[in-house]
Amino acid sequence: MTSSVSSSVTSSVAGAVAALRESVCRLHAELVRYGLVAWTAGNVSGRVPGADLFVIKPSGVSYDDLSPESIVVCDLDGALVDGELAPSSDTAAHAYVYRHLPQVGGVVHTHSTYASAWAARGEAIPCVLTAMADEFGGPIPVGPFALIGNDDIGRGIVATLDGHRSPAVLMRNHGVFTIGADPRAAVKAAVMCEDVARTVHVARQLGEPLPIAPADIDRLYDRYQNVYGQH
Amino acid sequence: MTSSVSSSVTSSVAGAVAALRESVCRLHAELVRYGLVAWTAGNVSGRVPGADLFVIKPSGVSYDDLSPESIVVCDLDGALVDGELAPSSDTAAHAYVYRHLPQVGGVVHTHSTYASAWAARGEAIPCVLTAMADEFGGPIPVGPFALIGNDDIGRGIVATLDGHRSPAVLMRNHGVFTIGADPRAAVKAAVMCEDVARTVHVARQLGEPLPIAPADIDRLYDRYQNVYGQH
Amino acid sequence: MTSSVSSSVTSSVAGAVAALRESVCRLHAELVRYGLVAWTAGNVSGRVPGADLFVIKPSGVSYDDLSPESIVVCDLDGALVDGELAPSSDTAAHAYVYRHLPQVGGVVHTHSTYASAWAARGEAIPCVLTAMADEFGGPIPVGPFALIGNDDIGRGIVATLDGHRSPAVLMRNHGVFTIGADPRAAVKAAVMCEDVARTVHVARQLGEPLPIAPADIDRLYDRYQNVYGQH
Amino acid sequence: MTSSVSSSVTSSVAGAVAALRESVCRLHAELVRYGLVAWTAGNVSGRVPGADLFVIKPSGVSYDDLSPESIVVCDLDGALVDGELAPSSDTAAHAYVYRHLPQVGGVVHTHSTYASAWAARGEAIPCVLTAMADEFGGPIPVGPFALIGNDDIGRGIVATLDGHRSPAVLMRNHGVFTIGADPRAAVKAAVMCEDVARTVHVARQLGEPLPIAPADIDRLYDRYQNVYGQH
Repeated sequence: MTSSVSSSVTSSVAGAVAALRESVCRLHAELVRYGLVAWTAGNVSGRVPGADLFVIKPSGVSYDDLSPESIVVCDLDGALVDGELAPSSDTAAHAYVYRHLPQVGGVVHTHSTYASAWAARGEAIPCVLTAMADEFGGPIPVGPFALIGNDDIGRGIVATLDGHRSPAVLMRNHGVFTIGADPRAAVKAAVMCEDVARTVHVARQLGEPLPIAPADIDRLYDRYQNVYGQH
Repeated sequence: MTSSVSSSVTSSVAGAVAALRESVCRLHAELVRYGLVAWTAGNVSGRVPGADLFVIKPSGVSYDDLSPESIVVCDLDGALVDGELAPSSDTAAHAYVYRHLPQVGGVVHTHSTYASAWAARGEAIPCVLTAMADEFGGPIPVGPFALIGNDDIGRGIVATLDGHRSPAVLMRNHGVFTIGADPRAAVKAAVMCEDVARTVHVARQLGEPLPIAPADIDRLYDRYQNVYGQH
Repeated sequence: MTSSVSSSVTSSVAGAVAALRESVCRLHAELVRYGLVAWTAGNVSGRVPGADLFVIKPSGVSYDDLSPESIVVCDLDGALVDGELAPSSDTAAHAYVYRHLPQVGGVVHTHSTYASAWAARGEAIPCVLTAMADEFGGPIPVGPFALIGNDDIGRGIVATLDGHRSPAVLMRNHGVFTIGADPRAAVKAAVMCEDVARTVHVARQLGEPLPIAPADIDRLYDRYQNVYGQH
Repeated sequence: MTSSVSSSVTSSVAGAVAALRESVCRLHAELVRYGLVAWTAGNVSGRVPGADLFVIKPSGVSYDDLSPESIVVCDLDGALVDGELAPSSDTAAHAYVYRHLPQVGGVVHTHSTYASAWAARGEAIPCVLTAMADEFGGPIPVGPFALIGNDDIGRGIVATLDGHRSPAVLMRNHGVFTIGADPRAAVKAAVMCEDVARTVHVARQLGEPLPIAPADIDRLYDRYQNVYGQH
């Protein structure tokens, strides 16, 4: 299943692939640092700029053992284009997202505890924190139950995100997928998703969180997307 | 937006600024160590002794990437006076506190999980632990819901802290602000706030914590503020 | 109680023992990393290929102080065959499993928090997460209450696992035992057991998790056991 | 308040003091590692063999800054005998325990989250885990509410532990004190106390843990105290 980079991709793309393998490899360490993953259950991918390709974690490899070289390259149908190892078993879902959402440059999947707990009940996370309004612009929605092995998960992700500002979707009885303009933004969304999933869970354990007015959610979202950070 | 230290501040102040940038930079690591912050959501500031200035975290910069040089200097209206980066998006709130509470030398803001959960319900944390009587001298109060972008958050902090001994205030649906005589004291208050927010939450999950008599809270607070530590 | 390896085991077995002591020693660090053990409460063992022997943690030794040499060798009755230290107090339970389940090459025991909480109520963990279907193929069952000191624990483990696909069993009021084809697989099962025990607990705190259809559990289990990872 | 070791203690005791300062200093790192302490709230002490003295943490010093030299020496009335710093504000409670329980060689105090939550409700932790039977031989009892500043806390600890096998006592609205034959045993009791406080809390969140028969608790306790570990 392996082929050399030189035969599959042009040399200008080869540089982009090398840089992306490096950054996607490093971003998996953020999933570990924030406690979003146990053993090997969670993965980051990134679209190769200027090519119908993305890079993704190999299947079942421990985070300690990941190296840039171990990150595999797939085409947008999820077929292996370059790499020594079999791609993540979630590759088809990532590929579906890249095929159908051209603005997406990074995808992350985890089974992080609190997000997955909401997903197990099939319940959207209500937007009751300003940090959640900032990052998600509203509730974090729930997608359908879907089996692995075909396009069902990818289709569920794309259909559910349509009509929400949230870059995160809880897949029923499963876990969370997040998207971003690049892999780092998708990792940030995964970190923030678990953070707000936990805080809202804890809030609800002892009563009902107060609502935030929809107009205020809009104001917070607009400001955060346009003013926050370094420009 | 950048100007050189030498033109903006006198040389005696320049030394104070350099020392404060160093300590405020280092104190952000305590927010990380105690798990009070996810990604870049949380910041520490410190008033420059002998000047109408304070230093604060730059906006959206990862804690790993903070250096003393990256910490920015602002005047008490929150305008950037020195530094290469845009100040924290919470700068206006910090500035308001420094303008209105002259005894305050440090301010911290986090979205720490348990404190934010109480804030999401708009519920003050009752003083049912001796450690809470020691540090907070009573309940940790809740301030109003306020949007970012003007003085509303700062005004809410100052108005709520007035009449409480607590150096921490829960801002509704948002998170926590703490104050101290210096940035280290404000960080300590943020750490202890989350610690007691969590313990009281856990206690209440299985019943009602026993009250501490107000006179005992007073005795504990007086002793801790005057006897504890090295003098 | 000590005897030299050369007199007890053949030289071809000696190499297998040395390699296994090394890997079993290292695998204890995974119990620490995932927070499954406090102080010295938890142990990993591994069957020696080609011999009626297994290696196991010595009793009451801190994880920091474990070295490959400190790992002891026992026969399948749990008697010490090689090593300077007394074997784990759970050795009889491990030995029983190796005697009665020839396909098992590794056993792990922990008191990990969430798994032990289900065990304290004597309640099986329902299979409401796809990750749980993948790894456990159904609910994680509960075995009987059993005292340490004879074969009762081992007998309870083996009797309970019979008729389940789960490599984990919750022992009532006690903790969890997991099995695997090798020690690493048993450690993975212990990590995943705590992960799903926690997620399902959190899900149930605020309502009822949605069920997964038994046929879907079968499909997920079959796929994960045969397709996941590198082959 | 400082005097030199040579004038206060004989030279044979001086060696014991030096060794104890070293080990008590190191044991504080275990409180940090197991998450039992926030900021400076928690302390370890150890009785000096062959002298009416004990060593203890200085007051308000960060765990990062502790060194063997910073650990102070007190007499059994809690008066400073040797050291540059003021002793822990909990010194009177430790001293009371050493005066009244001659078999005790180590004392630990923390505000660890789950133990303190039971203490805030004034509720003993029921013995529903075999690990709890092993280490505590029954429930972990609750002592009275007591203010700091005189012998009330020490008296409450000693009176409550009398008639229990537990080396841990929950002090109402406060935290936990543990005792042991040496400081390491007291630290172990503090670690195990929080571990079982958390597991039993989690178990009770979703129902009622099953009881363990008193005769089985006795059997487990007797075995663990006499057989476990290296002898």
